[in-house]
Amino acid sequence: MKIVVDAMGGDHGPKITISGALQAIKEYDVNIILTGQKEIIEKELQNHDYPKHKLEIIDCREVVENEDKPVAAIRRKKDSSMVVGLNLVKEKKADAIISAGNTGALLAGGLFILGRIQGIDRPALAPVYPTKKGVSVLIDGGANTECKPRNLLEFAVMGDIYASRVLKINNPKVCIANIGIEEGKGNDLVKKAYPLFEDRYFNFGGNVEARDIPAGYADVIVCDGFTGNIILKLTEGIAETIFGALKEEFTKNTLRKLGAALLKSGLKGFKNRFDYTEYGGAPFLGVNGTLIKAHGSSNDKAIKNAIRQAKTFVENNVIDDITKEIHKLGEDIVE
Amino acid sequence: MKIVVDAMGGDHGPKITISGALQAIKEYDVNIILTGQKEIIEKELQNHDYPKHKLEIIDCREVVENEDKPVAAIRRKKDSSMVVGLNLVKEKKADAIISAGNTGALLAGGLFILGRIQGIDRPALAPVYPTKKGVSVLIDGGANTECKPRNLLEFAVMGDIYASRVLKINNPKVCIANIGIEEGKGNDLVKKAYPLFEDRYFNFGGNVEARDIPAGYADVIVCDGFTGNIILKLTEGIAETIFGALKEEFTKNTLRKLGAALLKSGLKGFKNRFDYTEYGGAPFLGVNGTLIKAHGSSNDKAIKNAIRQAKTFVENNVIDDITKEIHKLGEDIVE
Repeated sequence: MKIVVDAMGGDHGPKITISGALQAIKEYDVNIILTGQKEIIEKELQNHDYPKHKLEIIDCREVVENEDKPVAAIRRKKDSSMVVGLNLVKEKKADAIISAGNTGALLAGGLFILGRIQGIDRPALAPVYPTKKGVSVLIDGGANTECKPRNLLEFAVMGDIYASRVLKINNPKVCIANIGIEEGKGNDLVKKAYPLFEDRYFNFGGNVEARDIPAGYADVIVCDGFTGNIILKLTEGIAETIFGALKEEFTKNTLRKLGAALLKSGLKGFKNRFDYTEYGGAPFLGVNGTLIKAHGSSNDKAIKNAIRQAKTFVENNVIDDITKEIHKLGEDIVE
Repeated sequence: MKIVVDAMGGDHGPKITISGALQAIKEYDVNIILTGQKEIIEKELQNHDYPKHKLEIIDCREVVENEDKPVAAIRRKKDSSMVVGLNLVKEKKADAIISAGNTGALLAGGLFILGRIQGIDRPALAPVYPTKKGVSVLIDGGANTECKPRNLLEFAVMGDIYASRVLKINNPKVCIANIGIEEGKGNDLVKKAYPLFEDRYFNFGGNVEARDIPAGYADVIVCDGFTGNIILKLTEGIAETIFGALKEEFTKNTLRKLGAALLKSGLKGFKNRFDYTEYGGAPFLGVNGTLIKAHGSSNDKAIKNAIRQAKTFVENNVIDDITKEIHKLGEDIVE
């Protein structure tokens, strides 16, 4: 299996993407294609020992920057590490691509270059959401700020397949994120989506209130991309604020510092529970190819795990499954 | 000043509402009217010592239950503690009302009985949101699941007045909750609202990303009620999950328990930072009367603080200020 890693993407640049890619070829049965500026990549590789036959470099002269306008970047920067990588997947020269670069550009590139799976109106980002029980899938994590009820149903189908095939959650409970559990609660979108979810093959668990999301009440949390992005980013912000406040309280005097020292392993265990780097990245589900968006601030471990995730994704024929199940939904639900 | 307390509202019943009311008449210069079933209230009062001239009981035979349908409850239960209390405010026999009862019914009652301030299309709930810096105001916290851009502007005006007059925040920074800071980001609602916010008399700080809300980036967070309720409830859920996980980690063995014991005051200080009971309740802004919704699970301290909050609200003529500023907005913004 060949997986493209966009070597130039991410806040920390090629040093991190390359280190993650090399860890992956040592640990997993995968070949990696690095796309990016050859001289930078080769210089970075000099610092590492690795199985050379498992790595290929494809030189590209351009880089999509975080500040670039998404659509313009994809249209104009044809020789960028991102566009070249996406084309490799499109032309079946690679099985999947991972990028930690400009999210908007990557999604636009996914849509334009890979195209949509037939029957999917809106592809969606599906990040994992760490919970008390383990992880849930959140879909849409931010690709579509305006959605129709039919879109939410497509998200549910894709999220269910991803949760069961890749995250190995048994019979995932699929819920609509809402402000109350009863049918009829919420805004127009979720009120209209609810009846579409009933009597489907997947395990529809009704609405999930935001308050029950962190406890892991739903395995797949379905929502529009505006709501999904608010949920994700707020969670990050709260975790940061709480960790910061704890640190402040725990270092106020010597006695507390001693207490904190005794709790060191406990605090570490606690932080690990909410460590997104364990889970790799967020697949862009619904495009006709395996595309994983890694967090901009990914470290090498996150990149390595995103590669493992892409491998599982491809091995389990997620795209074929989505294609089949979406076809079954039929064309009758147009709203 | 006379403040009505709906003695029958709240998950913990009259024991808590009465205890909170009595603490308030001892501490503040207010008179309280308790609405509810006289025999229950009088029995509860026997356990307390209090300045009797500051307390009045108005007997009502009905109770709005949490399970009641909001509109039907308000229409049919004319002799309930909630409806009788709202009528006292309407008839200027009291200056404000506090209830920890059925939220939907209370909001419906506020709309039907108190009516809207002229020029306000949609009254909104404005709970405080504890942050790293102190508190912000979130508006709308859940009263309106569908909003128009003009509604968000009204929320901004009301939130600004509440933050400065009652919470004493100096020149509050008013922001729109969004998924990015640049103008043009987000769903249709917030995209259209943004230009309406510019060049107003209040301090418009642009968009606030959900990630920056817990740090206190915005003093007033403006959003539709669906988003607002997701933000509030998710925050509660995350805090619960994090506290639960900490407790689990900190009690795993004797060494950790010892560490946690040394940190006891630190943990308490930490919890206090996020203690909503300090702040009372959420005013329903935009109705023609002072109406405070206390949390269903309020303890007596929360009820007492809601009474203090209502007092500050009335003393600072918040309703007059809202009436004036909304009038200035004019009728030209109809969207």
